[in-house]
Amino acid sequence: MKFRFFVQLLFLSFSIAVVSAQKIVNLSDFNIVGSKDATPCVYEALKSVEGKDAKLVFPKGIYHFYPDKAFGKYHAITNHDNSYKYFAFPLINCKNIEIDGQGSEFIFHGVMTPVLVENSENITLKNFSIDWQEPFYLQAKVASVDTQNKTFDLFISNEIRHQIEGNRLSFSTNGLYIPFLGEHIVFDPKTKAVAYNSINYNLGSKNANRLIEVKAVEKNRCTVLNSSVKQLPKVGYIYVFKGPNGMNRFAPAMHLSSSKNLNLTNINIYQAGGMGLIAEKTENIHLNSFNVKLREGTNRILTTTADATHFCNCKGVVLIENCLFENMLDDGSNIHGTYMRISEIVNNNTIRVRLVHPQQWDYNFASSGDSIEFIQNKTLLPVASYRLKSVTKINEKFYEITFENDIPESVKIDDGIENISWYPKLIFRNNVVRNNRARSILISNRYKTIIENNSFSSMMSSVLFEGDMNYWHESGAVNDVVIRNNKFHDNVYGGGKGSVIWINPRLDSIVSGQYYERNIRIENNSFETFDNSILNAKSVNGLIFKNNSIVETKTYPKLNPELPAINMQNCSNIVIQGNTYQGSSKRMIDIDNQSKVTLVLDNNQKGFKVN
Amino acid sequence: MKFRFFVQLLFLSFSIAVVSAQKIVNLSDFNIVGSKDATPCVYEALKSVEGKDAKLVFPKGIYHFYPDKAFGKYHAITNHDNSYKYFAFPLINCKNIEIDGQGSEFIFHGVMTPVLVENSENITLKNFSIDWQEPFYLQAKVASVDTQNKTFDLFISNEIRHQIEGNRLSFSTNGLYIPFLGEHIVFDPKTKAVAYNSINYNLGSKNANRLIEVKAVEKNRCTVLNSSVKQLPKVGYIYVFKGPNGMNRFAPAMHLSSSKNLNLTNINIYQAGGMGLIAEKTENIHLNSFNVKLREGTNRILTTTADATHFCNCKGVVLIENCLFENMLDDGSNIHGTYMRISEIVNNNTIRVRLVHPQQWDYNFASSGDSIEFIQNKTLLPVASYRLKSVTKINEKFYEITFENDIPESVKIDDGIENISWYPKLIFRNNVVRNNRARSILISNRYKTIIENNSFSSMMSSVLFEGDMNYWHESGAVNDVVIRNNKFHDNVYGGGKGSVIWINPRLDSIVSGQYYERNIRIENNSFETFDNSILNAKSVNGLIFKNNSIVETKTYPKLNPELPAINMQNCSNIVIQGNTYQGSSKRMIDIDNQSKVTLVLDNNQKGFKVN
Repeated sequence: MKFRFFVQLLFLSFSIAVVSAQKIVNLSDFNIVGSKDATPCVYEALKSVEGKDAKLVFPKGIYHFYPDKAFGKYHAITNHDNSYKYFAFPLINCKNIEIDGQGSEFIFHGVMTPVLVENSENITLKNFSIDWQEPFYLQAKVASVDTQNKTFDLFISNEIRHQIEGNRLSFSTNGLYIPFLGEHIVFDPKTKAVAYNSINYNLGSKNANRLIEVKAVEKNRCTVLNSSVKQLPKVGYIYVFKGPNGMNRFAPAMHLSSSKNLNLTNINIYQAGGMGLIAEKTENIHLNSFNVKLREGTNRILTTTADATHFCNCKGVVLIENCLFENMLDDGSNIHGTYMRISEIVNNNTIRVRLVHPQQWDYNFASSGDSIEFIQNKTLLPVASYRLKSVTKINEKFYEITFENDIPESVKIDDGIENISWYPKLIFRNNVVRNNRARSILISNRYKTIIENNSFSSMMSSVLFEGDMNYWHESGAVNDVVIRNNKFHDNVYGGGKGSVIWINPRLDSIVSGQYYERNIRIENNSFETFDNSILNAKSVNGLIFKNNSIVETKTYPKLNPELPAINMQNCSNIVIQGNTYQGSSKRMIDIDNQSKVTLVLDNNQKGFKVN
Repeated sequence: MKFRFFVQLLFLSFSIAVVSAQKIVNLSDFNIVGSKDATPCVYEALKSVEGKDAKLVFPKGIYHFYPDKAFGKYHAITNHDNSYKYFAFPLINCKNIEIDGQGSEFIFHGVMTPVLVENSENITLKNFSIDWQEPFYLQAKVASVDTQNKTFDLFISNEIRHQIEGNRLSFSTNGLYIPFLGEHIVFDPKTKAVAYNSINYNLGSKNANRLIEVKAVEKNRCTVLNSSVKQLPKVGYIYVFKGPNGMNRFAPAMHLSSSKNLNLTNINIYQAGGMGLIAEKTENIHLNSFNVKLREGTNRILTTTADATHFCNCKGVVLIENCLFENMLDDGSNIHGTYMRISEIVNNNTIRVRLVHPQQWDYNFASSGDSIEFIQNKTLLPVASYRLKSVTKINEKFYEITFENDIPESVKIDDGIENISWYPKLIFRNNVVRNNRARSILISNRYKTIIENNSFSSMMSSVLFEGDMNYWHESGAVNDVVIRNNKFHDNVYGGGKGSVIWINPRLDSIVSGQYYERNIRIENNSFETFDNSILNAKSVNGLIFKNNSIVETKTYPKLNPELPAINMQNCSNIVIQGNTYQGSSKRMIDIDNQSKVTLVLDNNQKGFKVN
């Protein structure tokens, strides 16, 4: 196993060299220099080499891309909103293609997905940046607060068009009219991060957003009248609004799908109306210095309106290194599979299943020959694995699946299935994730996972493990995770629940002696954070927390001073050893009786108070 | 030519008999009786015969259909809003299939298209009705008016969910949230038709709809505060709101596409979120007793939210007979082709063209071997015809087209093309069109067209000819139209411009001696209407208006008393003979100098006053 892993890594390193031996196509031969719209130049260049065996080189410059003449098709992207989409780089059925921007800036206009890699092999993308002329969100600074009336004024950036219609603030960006402010959060201009306790400044969640009333004060300034804020925001705080759920994930910067051997190097993503990179059903991906970052010299406080990077049912090796992910509206990385729910058991070897979350609809869940594991509905525990014979998509959320053999009789309606042929070995190293909404990284990955030498500071957990079959339907109980030599700075400052490392599979019921997660090793990390809760775990068999240093900072007042540093429920084979603590917490460890049975606890850890 | 036409008609009559000789499948064998959702039963029945050589028979009953388990795909429908759609009867790649409802009622739930016939041949559908549990519109009665404040109260039907959010009235139907009242019109409960001068009650057009403010008075009742009505509506008048453009044409009742030999008989459509029937690129269609009508015993004032029937680039024979089309929010029938506009001339035989109107996007404009006519931009006059070699859809609105030969040098950017291989012979006879918004019938059809023995009463023109390359981009200059033995009751009462028969190609400039339309014969019709204008024509070569009877009614006050009965501009070879008139108009005929050159005018027509 170890040898194979090494060979795969080797492949990743060498594939760039292989590709660069191929035909060189200079984009200037396609009249890209001075073009108003570079889209047809790229389209023609790709067509000229029939998508094969070529290196497309851009003269260093600034190029603009528009959807009008871009390749388009209806396109489903997991964890996004499906729609008819336009692509500036439609790398479909391509082989041995390298795109070298030579430091160029690619500026996009309109709702489009700059890069699609689909059914392709050996693709290298490097040396360019992606930005949009108009951001996918409305940015507004708190201009004044009125404590008596519990209202406040917003000064609205006029980078994109906005208007008050009736008593509702709406905006238009990239050709899209956004009728409601929708999902939003508050940033602190001093830290350039999500504001401490930002949950308190929420104007009204989900559909309640539609009820926010504003009154015009003067050009670009309005008073927010009926918000449901728990606390008035500070003057200078920055609200960002990305529109309602279902209208704000149309345009990720890059979609990698059903492909193999992809290298992305030295790329900066400054904006996207969705994720920076979303990969699904793809084998071997190497991101090196692939950054989702604020563009210097602008007042924009946001990068992507969803995760920086996201990997659903990838396999082979996913290697992410030397990246900076900052100021996104969702996680730094999320690596997981997908649960479908059983709707009907048609006969001994045929079931009908559904995709529940709208942002998973039309997902290419599996193909003939894949191995599928049946999962119990409430416990999320596996029942058995079966080889898949065929899949028929009846509609985007309802599929018929047949198996080579009869399925177990114990399988019931509402149980789940996951595709265990599609999980990667994951290495996430030397990366920085900071200042974003949500988590630094989510790990729901069946195979070997190494998280090392990173620096994390997010407003929710830094590392979250969270299989669930009720909301997101993201699968992937772990079996082998190492988290080592990372620096965890202030985390979980947004005001919601969570620990710096939170192992929280969403189980409706627990079976004694059975565990969702296995073998998680957390060692030699440095936790420097203002609040108490460092590690909270449930349903893990084999959890080592060893040689970590915990130092309390004074960055913010504690939000949950009652919580212990370490909390374990329904775990087995826990080892807590060699850690040190400096801080004011009076309660270091809280472990339930069941977890205590097999616990190995070092009682002489420096600074640890005995409970 | 005549003989071939007769043979085609014969085929249409016999094809039902051919199909009925095939395998009988009783839907009760698929557990349809007592089913909560009949959708999977139909799906399984069609699958069981592999879509071929079968008659599917429904035990007479009421059946409910839901999208959840319906066949689905992303689907473009011309003159509608493209989206991922669900189909209860997915007749795709079918041959020799008959569906006999035996008088059953099919009730739909949610946004779906009940019937899709695609790439199919010899299909008969008969003896059923289509309705939706929830209508696709909000119906509201004027409860009171306040002349002082120029406001009025609406009493809102609670058949569908509605709510006041802020000061905005929104509604939800068939699972779709409609944030704005959007397009709307007023009906008169006494006539059950669109209200006389309904244009005066418009609350604000297009995006101004978003600004309509309402205030809750009591449950189901609100005051409309800031409407832009020219006149307050009468108490009892009924507003219908179908939501904003782009959100109200997702779910036509039937879509016929790329098929051949289709018979639809004895079908009632009571509702649709779009058209009753939309056919495109289909050869030989016979509608007999295919009705779009109000369902008796309900308070619903509307049927379909768009046209009753619509035919785009069909060919062979389209025969529509013995149908009733009433209370739609658009035309009774519209028969036309499609103009694309030239964006780029790539080389001698290659152009790139665009679809301009969003509801034409993704249209399958043409295939290899079709004949394409080039059309001048401003005059809409033809340049030359060429055979098409290939079409590549770069995206839904941007196509590349190559021709077998070099195209003319005179062709310029922004000129148009139309597909002249796809127009039908049209017979529209023994039909009633009444009480709807818009026209009774639009004719933009290159080939033989017979409109006879119909009864028409619509709030705009009864018959409209209107090629245009600026807005709808509907092509089809006529060459041979007969309009005879029809009864035209009160028309053009909505308050907009128009004549009972209006020949109004939208030409930006006119070339002396050249005409858009040719050979229109209007004879032996009876016009009984309250207003003056009966026939208004421009750019016709060969227009006969003969032996028609015109009788003025007292139904409504005249809206345009200054207009003549007959008005001609830039026509040639006009014959006006043997017509009679009873009424108060002082000005019967207004013909411009150019049209007079070749005019044959009977000066002794009974009741005609000399100008």
